Amino acid sequence: MSPQPLYADYPPALSDEQAQFLLDNLKDWSIANGLAVRPAPTFVASSLDPAGVLANTAPVTLFPSLFPKNCYEEGLAIQKSYNELYSAIARDEEWLKEIVEELIGVDEFVAKLWKVHLKVKEEGLVQDITLGLFRSDYMVHLDPEDTNAKPKIKQVEFNTIASSFGGLSSRVSGLHKHLLSIEAYPADVFPAITQDALPENKSVASLAAGLAAAHKAYGPSRSTKPLCVLFVVQDPERNVFDQRLLEYSLLSESGVRSYRVPFSRVLDETKLDSQRNLIYRPKHAPVKEYEVSTVYFRAGYSPDDYPSETEWDARLHIERSHAIKCPSVLLHLAGCKKVQQVLATPHSPHLARFLSNDATVARVKETFAPIYPLDKSDAGLEARKLALNADTAQRYVLKPQREGGGNNIYRKNIPPFLATLPESSWPAYILMEMIEPPAANNVIIRNGEVRKGGVIGELGVYGVCLWRHGDGAAVRGQILENWEAGYLLRTKGNESEEGGVAAGFGAVDSICLVDV
Amino acid sequence: MSPQPLYADYPPALSDEQAQFLLDNLKDWSIANGLAVRPAPTFVASSLDPAGVLANTAPVTLFPSLFPKNCYEEGLAIQKSYNELYSAIARDEEWLKEIVEELIGVDEFVAKLWKVHLKVKEEGLVQDITLGLFRSDYMVHLDPEDTNAKPKIKQVEFNTIASSFGGLSSRVSGLHKHLLSIEAYPADVFPAITQDALPENKSVASLAAGLAAAHKAYGPSRSTKPLCVLFVVQDPERNVFDQRLLEYSLLSESGVRSYRVPFSRVLDETKLDSQRNLIYRPKHAPVKEYEVSTVYFRAGYSPDDYPSETEWDARLHIERSHAIKCPSVLLHLAGCKKVQQVLATPHSPHLARFLSNDATVARVKETFAPIYPLDKSDAGLEARKLALNADTAQRYVLKPQREGGGNNIYRKNIPPFLATLPESSWPAYILMEMIEPPAANNVIIRNGEVRKGGVIGELGVYGVCLWRHGDGAAVRGQILENWEAGYLLRTKGNESEEGGVAAGFGAVDSICLVDV
Repeated sequence: MSPQPLYADYPPALSDEQAQFLLDNLKDWSIANGLAVRPAPTFVASSLDPAGVLANTAPVTLFPSLFPKNCYEEGLAIQKSYNELYSAIARDEEWLKEIVEELIGVDEFVAKLWKVHLKVKEEGLVQDITLGLFRSDYMVHLDPEDTNAKPKIKQVEFNTIASSFGGLSSRVSGLHKHLLSIEAYPADVFPAITQDALPENKSVASLAAGLAAAHKAYGPSRSTKPLCVLFVVQDPERNVFDQRLLEYSLLSESGVRSYRVPFSRVLDETKLDSQRNLIYRPKHAPVKEYEVSTVYFRAGYSPDDYPSETEWDARLHIERSHAIKCPSVLLHLAGCKKVQQVLATPHSPHLARFLSNDATVARVKETFAPIYPLDKSDAGLEARKLALNADTAQRYVLKPQREGGGNNIYRKNIPPFLATLPESSWPAYILMEMIEPPAANNVIIRNGEVRKGGVIGELGVYGVCLWRHGDGAAVRGQILENWEAGYLLRTKGNESEEGGVAAGFGAVDSICLVDV
Repeated sequence: MSPQPLYADYPPALSDEQAQFLLDNLKDWSIANGLAVRPAPTFVASSLDPAGVLANTAPVTLFPSLFPKNCYEEGLAIQKSYNELYSAIARDEEWLKEIVEELIGVDEFVAKLWKVHLKVKEEGLVQDITLGLFRSDYMVHLDPEDTNAKPKIKQVEFNTIASSFGGLSSRVSGLHKHLLSIEAYPADVFPAITQDALPENKSVASLAAGLAAAHKAYGPSRSTKPLCVLFVVQDPERNVFDQRLLEYSLLSESGVRSYRVPFSRVLDETKLDSQRNLIYRPKHAPVKEYEVSTVYFRAGYSPDDYPSETEWDARLHIERSHAIKCPSVLLHLAGCKKVQQVLATPHSPHLARFLSNDATVARVKETFAPIYPLDKSDAGLEARKLALNADTAQRYVLKPQREGGGNNIYRKNIPPFLATLPESSWPAYILMEMIEPPAANNVIIRNGEVRKGGVIGELGVYGVCLWRHGDGAAVRGQILENWEAGYLLRTKGNESEEGGVAAGFGAVDSICLVDV
């Protein structure tokens, strides 16, 4: 069952002095270069630092992780097709509607998002352009039944909203390259790590360029007020530097101003004028007003971000506006796990609807792990059998349809979990074949604690896509910009089965390419 | 007596929301850009963070300080002459010897440094090149008896060793420029602050280029081992990012490797080979050896850095070596306050010995505040009268000759202080006319505390100078490189009369030029 240990003897052991040298340099470089987070309250009580000036090294790995070159290259190469795919889905309201209507009864979050869309549609949409800053997440899969098989990437999920860590992932690549350049990975001990094996990672500049492209596509101000981009954020936000790095790149590389507004304050600090231009009235400059070209959501992706109707009103308010949304509600919904499941259900015909090229369809399909619905379709009934049997469940994971992570149920825990749920709620979950990543080790520093152990890596590939929705009947509309935008490697201890660096379970990592 | 309040209504008041916006942006930008220090133990107990991963915003001002343009320009313009002057002094052993011999009986630190020099001289010096990374510190002086006089810069001290804050000062200039670009200094409230009024500050790149120039001038490796630069540092060092920024710039801009070694470990981690090449054997890479091209002292400037004979042995060890020293012992001694005093004693003939151009001599002299010895020379006897009389003492400050700050005695406290000292110790001090800076205000954030109040600013101008000592009889030798290297503005609350950001009394600031 257990996949072969491709990299069992990596990373090699360092002497205490070597480890100390590496760590001293890592700690200083990270802070000097913005690879930081605000400390967790479990690490530094907020009473100790009421003004919030403290920061610490973001959770990172001490070593870049070995990663199959073919998998890395395939992930990057296929990103533009994924951008095209999800852009097409977001433009195909009719198709999306069918998906959403299946979920409305079981997923209140999806239902409320859909309601926002319908309300705006009724009134008429005034902005034809949408921006996607995507991240397609993969794990490396080694077929447990074929020890000669090459590793492949298999998609874990596709993010259409608030794709995070674009800032920190660029920086951790820089960190590992720096550590190599100062010989903290001595060549005799780490022959695998060379500058050529550590790809450059331009995620922060490339994602910021996406925001700049939307800002430009918005066109001139319609209200004569200066234009700006608005980051809609959580408050407080410990992962703020990840976001600030995008803001700074957007300003320094493209000269585009942006502001941060907590989701809960959107209604206080913005209004719509008679043309439904989104006007930002900063509380710090009450005499100034800006017209918002682009709203970039770094909040609003999870039901937790909507504690009251105020946030739903805010989401509607933004959706009604003339600002370009990153993402629109339709694009947000396109990222729900049900869509991923429908695309990845064995023998699904859907990909061909969205991608015109057969070779592209086949290539995208190669990155899917089989995913089943838990409804009463043929595939759903087959899945229920697999999920309720403890033996077959062993190769699957049960995931909620909605975004935001958390609450995945693994392998043998699936049958008893389903037993606790009314059958009517089962369609809120999908069943996915487990991806079996190669065993690997790394060392993680988190809140000053250094832990070595078995890890699992998750490759995220960023994509930027900007398009016009076009005529409602047309599926494809007009893609204005489409590019791959760097990568993220998140590495987590394999004793936990759930990722998420900001939540404290993992670390940001970088890739050391190896031929397999 | 009190100088006129040139800038009494600066900085203008901000609303709570404006202040919060400014502060939020300042806190995030500083950490994202390495404008940081390790927290003081009084702020974060080291038991809370044993691994030392926490950092906080370096003490900085919220606003750039208004600064007379003529003073800023004069400070920059004269730096190359100061570089030439102190380079010439360090090459004039005969002249320095007279100065030092006056101090040997009263200043053990100077005596021990001199002993190191003499020992190496006896054996023969093997490195003819010396690097100076200087900082000339000034305050703006407004003649209290002439309210029409233009402000002038008057030198506070000249640093020939461990001139700090070159890293953070570049960053704080960047911070204030960023805050302006996001309108945290609204144009209607802060008409004085414009991008043109905020000069760019390239101190970090320019000082690192000085280290690179020395590294290059050292020539090829004589031992066939790879070359490196060695930073000799204190341990622990809270101001580590200031130093790391130089290290990173040296590596990224010039491709020169450097390592940090605590002063106390120099003898363990370096050795001299038969040619007196300084060989660095890093404890983190015991099989590797480097030949040190340049030793950059960020420790060893104060008697506190020499708790035992081990450190004196280490200083001797480095001085004996073939590495270029920044600084050599002679250059270190050239920076002692006695030298400054001798140069600035009214009617002193010394400047003309070191500077060939009469106009340059006059221009440098203009930046001196009168300084007197407290010995039994004519000037010294005159000074004793001034210092012992409470009325005249009111316009003076008493400073110890030795480096490192601390223990200045001001105005009316001078007569009682001298009364506690045996007269034989008086020559260890110099008497300097007080510089009367314009009253000013600013707001400082330090350890998360925000304090507004009256402040005094101190302008530091960095200089890089590299020279060959040349024939012992020649005073001028050969200057290989000589440039002005950016600036520092340190601002401290005027309730304290002693500066020093790292010690917690002040903040790093930047300059907003104003015509006067």
